[in-house]
Amino acid sequence: MKERVYSIPALKRMPAYLKELKRARADKVPRIASAQLAKRLNIDSITVRKDLEMIGAAGAPGIGYRVDALTEHIEAFLGWNNSSEAFLIGVGELGRALLGYSGFSAYGLKIIAAFNCDEAISSYEEYIHGIPVFPITSLEHLIKRLKIKLAILCVDDAYAQNAAETAVNAGIMAIWNFTQQSLLLPERVIQQQANFGGDFAVLSVKLAERIREDEQYGF
Amino acid sequence: MKERVYSIPALKRMPAYLKELKRARADKVPRIASAQLAKRLNIDSITVRKDLEMIGAAGAPGIGYRVDALTEHIEAFLGWNNSSEAFLIGVGELGRALLGYSGFSAYGLKIIAAFNCDEAISSYEEYIHGIPVFPITSLEHLIKRLKIKLAILCVDDAYAQNAAETAVNAGIMAIWNFTQQSLLLPERVIQQQANFGGDFAVLSVKLAERIREDEQYGF
Repeated sequence: MKERVYSIPALKRMPAYLKELKRARADKVPRIASAQLAKRLNIDSITVRKDLEMIGAAGAPGIGYRVDALTEHIEAFLGWNNSSEAFLIGVGELGRALLGYSGFSAYGLKIIAAFNCDEAISSYEEYIHGIPVFPITSLEHLIKRLKIKLAILCVDDAYAQNAAETAVNAGIMAIWNFTQQSLLLPERVIQQQANFGGDFAVLSVKLAERIREDEQYGF
Repeated sequence: MKERVYSIPALKRMPAYLKELKRARADKVPRIASAQLAKRLNIDSITVRKDLEMIGAAGAPGIGYRVDALTEHIEAFLGWNNSSEAFLIGVGELGRALLGYSGFSAYGLKIIAAFNCDEAISSYEEYIHGIPVFPITSLEHLIKRLKIKLAILCVDDAYAQNAAETAVNAGIMAIWNFTQQSLLLPERVIQQQANFGGDFAVLSVKLAERIREDEQYGF
């Protein structure tokens, strides 16, 4: 089967479209034009139209997109209409913060269990933010048992490769890697590095430019 | 002054180039070709060449880029050669995790103080991961005093707008927003939303595709 090729930047914009559509929905706006979406998100409207064309969403010229239909279309495209179940591995500070992160529900992402690598923790905590915590020794068994495909990795860097291998051997197909460690895994495993750096690069460049401008104008 | 226009996706790839260059440096590799960078990062080499051209880095045809020079060039472009000092506002679970996040140092980002909005916390904790924690009431004064330009916002959503306004009024020029709240701020303020959703969108689509393929081939 030929793999469909999607533009990664376009994929990354989808959650922003969804957010704006949900806002429009809450405001009881029935239709939205690409130009409106573009303005809200500070991108140009040709990009918006191309992105939505890429996923097969059609707007009527001059009338725009139906907010309900487009929301459903994007969610279905991303698979966010069905909740994706995931395991979270590593309940240090970052893991704990992610377990409590309210934003994930908007992506249809549901963390159904967490695993810790530190017996000292498991001995006194059974739930974090209402999500059950198991010792890492149960990871393999529970991945197989519950047929979980997605793991969120936030263990200590030194333990990342090891934990990822265990998860993959048990059937995990995709890893969202919040550690600093690059993982060596079979090519079929989908890896996504949590990308704080990319956002910060954009911020840094804009800020440096703004400071230069202000100096130039003597602010 | 005309603002220079940089491609946002290209900017977001810069940290990945840096990471690979640092790896090459550690391996004592003196030169690296765009094709090598491309392969490591799973993108095409034309993109690599265009990205590096955009920031004015020149490679010699057939010989590639000097690893040291290119590292310095990218760091200087991003302003990551000087450390950017930032304040972090909100020391809940996410804020605490970010204070301990080891990845920031690679971006030249230095959080020099944290602020909490919860007096109950400040009363018993003066440092988190070695970073001093102040009550939110000191925020304005310390931004002015230390001329801090960048704030990392991870307060509760309900408090986000309020905290951002306080910071901006005191002189903050850029906000890295880790809350779920969209902020209404003067246009001159640079905002970057922490974008977990974008990464997850890419992961979701790839995973859904892989699962479809496997079903088709009867795995």
